[in-house]
Amino acid sequence: MSDRILATYLIETPYPLERAAEVMAGEQSCGTFTRLPSETDALREAHAARVEHIEPLEASYTPSLPIPALQSGKVHPVYRQARVTLSWPLANLGTSLPTLFATLAGNLFELKELSALKLLDLTLPKPFAEAYPGPQFGIAGTRELTGITKRPIIGTIIKPSVGLSPNATAEVVSQLLKGGIDFIKDDELQANSPHNPFKERVDAVMPLIREHAERSGHKVMYAFNITGEADQMRDHHDYVVAAGGSCVMVALNAVGLTGVSQLRRHCQVALHGHRAGWGMFSRSPHLGMSFVAYQKLWRLVGVDHIHVNGLRNKFSEEDASVIASARACLTPMFDPPSPGYEVMPVFSSGQTADQAVDTYSAITSTDLIFCAGGGIMAHPDGIGAGVRSLRQAWEAAMEGIDVNVYAREHTELARALETFHQ
Amino acid sequence: MSDRILATYLIETPYPLERAAEVMAGEQSCGTFTRLPSETDALREAHAARVEHIEPLEASYTPSLPIPALQSGKVHPVYRQARVTLSWPLANLGTSLPTLFATLAGNLFELKELSALKLLDLTLPKPFAEAYPGPQFGIAGTRELTGITKRPIIGTIIKPSVGLSPNATAEVVSQLLKGGIDFIKDDELQANSPHNPFKERVDAVMPLIREHAERSGHKVMYAFNITGEADQMRDHHDYVVAAGGSCVMVALNAVGLTGVSQLRRHCQVALHGHRAGWGMFSRSPHLGMSFVAYQKLWRLVGVDHIHVNGLRNKFSEEDASVIASARACLTPMFDPPSPGYEVMPVFSSGQTADQAVDTYSAITSTDLIFCAGGGIMAHPDGIGAGVRSLRQAWEAAMEGIDVNVYAREHTELARALETFHQ
Repeated sequence: MSDRILATYLIETPYPLERAAEVMAGEQSCGTFTRLPSETDALREAHAARVEHIEPLEASYTPSLPIPALQSGKVHPVYRQARVTLSWPLANLGTSLPTLFATLAGNLFELKELSALKLLDLTLPKPFAEAYPGPQFGIAGTRELTGITKRPIIGTIIKPSVGLSPNATAEVVSQLLKGGIDFIKDDELQANSPHNPFKERVDAVMPLIREHAERSGHKVMYAFNITGEADQMRDHHDYVVAAGGSCVMVALNAVGLTGVSQLRRHCQVALHGHRAGWGMFSRSPHLGMSFVAYQKLWRLVGVDHIHVNGLRNKFSEEDASVIASARACLTPMFDPPSPGYEVMPVFSSGQTADQAVDTYSAITSTDLIFCAGGGIMAHPDGIGAGVRSLRQAWEAAMEGIDVNVYAREHTELARALETFHQ
Repeated sequence: MSDRILATYLIETPYPLERAAEVMAGEQSCGTFTRLPSETDALREAHAARVEHIEPLEASYTPSLPIPALQSGKVHPVYRQARVTLSWPLANLGTSLPTLFATLAGNLFELKELSALKLLDLTLPKPFAEAYPGPQFGIAGTRELTGITKRPIIGTIIKPSVGLSPNATAEVVSQLLKGGIDFIKDDELQANSPHNPFKERVDAVMPLIREHAERSGHKVMYAFNITGEADQMRDHHDYVVAAGGSCVMVALNAVGLTGVSQLRRHCQVALHGHRAGWGMFSRSPHLGMSFVAYQKLWRLVGVDHIHVNGLRNKFSEEDASVIASARACLTPMFDPPSPGYEVMPVFSSGQTADQAVDTYSAITSTDLIFCAGGGIMAHPDGIGAGVRSLRQAWEAAMEGIDVNVYAREHTELARALETFHQ
């Protein structure tokens, strides 16, 4: 156990690796461009960031990101990549997540010594766990709220994303409930709009969910998108709670760390984290942040679910990356590792019955929310058949039965595979 | 005047430009990967995002960001760049900035059809100006609070960034006040740490600033870094106000949109916006967001000052980009353009007396805060001489006198140029 914060970065630099790492450490602790009289040896010893480890990787003659010409005027500089681990004493910043963000990111991404910088991972000492509550419901609590114990939670997204009125939304919900859905979420584009005001949507949707729960004993979780200004999020959260709802959703990057953290401390229901805008951090292999680092921040803040994309998704993310993200959500964090901060990974984007078997065999867990929008709504036999096709696909996966064999006796699954198989 | 929101992106795609633009518009409004029965023509007409303009740019055989292989199996696809403008009706989202962020960014940055995506600019209809207060003090208010009317506000950053105690900070402040500084800021790494607790710092620093104001009639602005959790920011803001302070600072990306917005509505002093982490959005020419778009979001939220880097800075940003950023801060926004949302650009990073003349001739305005850390603290004749060297450099710039000529009769300037000239 250590009282130091560790962060590992991928870097690329035309300078010696040791020098580049020292520049990073200096910029993010004591340094300015010139050493000051007040920067005593004792101060440096107590507060300077430390270079813990440098692991050299490949090199090339082309910089991954634009970089000013070297002052030495070398004609063909070599750009070396490395994995660099820095550490900071907790005394520099305490357990403040916003200051941690400023320390991990700060001006580092602008350094002219680096032609690539990606935050790969971070390890936080235990005092962070005392300062931040983490997930309130997490995996066990979400299972309790939904009553789904031994299989993935089958979910969907209201589509079209925008344009439906509250009543039209309720009409879709009604069909989903009949079909046997476990979880429904608003689209991230639909929060509180003139054509679909938030409270009217809750008023239209929640009676259906309550009636269905009374009838079936099964309370479907609806993640109402409360993304908005702080006071409004609180007000909308309270409205959902009063209406008997069990989940609210926020677009994490749109709201920001402190907004979500404040909401978490007030929240009485599951907190569903959407990562809209995530591509800005992740899309380049040479810039930004890995999902491993990103999800640790949000788990600490205390979301209960977080989106991880899905296999064969409609976006650019590769399957291996999706699976690594989902596993990260299920892995204990802190130094030493401490259970209780695990969250439900949410699979979505182009998901249909076609991906269930491969998802299960890759993740070897049913602790996940499996969301299909078009994969349910565009099933040729309607929304109910769409939901049933997903349940059937997961039954086949969990029982180790070939999905095509299982489809012979399960029409909805058969029709889904015909329609959606890639 | 329009009730539509416009956003312009740089894109790159191996698909026909029209198709890529349509995919973007679909993803960020009605669409899922397959058209649904409920997606009626009337719904699309009212709510679909519209492709307003496509301006083709250069093409190459190499994708700027990794992209999955084309299904057509073309051996050498051509990756075309273009400037694409999309628009959305205000009815889709209302005037919520967090939902605007989800709409502008959403999943767009992950689309497999795009091998580059950068948000270049956005134009907001007037109702946003009614929903968000904008800067409370802005340029005129900051001048009033500091009493500096016709020249740039000369500022500095407390260095070393971390490691100083509250008393050691006050000792630096004392020297800065004697030297005639206008503005002082905490480093973005120093907010509320075990070795420099926030309130103790305020208690140590503010009596000096109040005494100096009584003596000189000149109230130096100290931007206390209140970056932290929401309740703490509010508490620290109130503490600064009670102590007679005139400015608080937040790390914008660390706090997030809703946290800063909530603070702004409570704030009674100038709100200083630091962009720590900005390199993640800006460093790649092919990913992220331009400063032109970024600063519009924060001006709307209501910061009064925002960092823009400086000429010949220690980072990777080029001078032309710095000047474009500073000009953006001084340009009216909205459709139609509306004054009152201009903010003070803050020049910093490796700034010394050496950059004053070039900064003035490039920006042709004195409406700026010019911050030097090492450029003041590492002046060979001490902090007071460092401050005077900057004042002298700006006098020369504003009077159109060659800085080297002016230095003949101004020792501090001469010594600064000897020490810092690049």
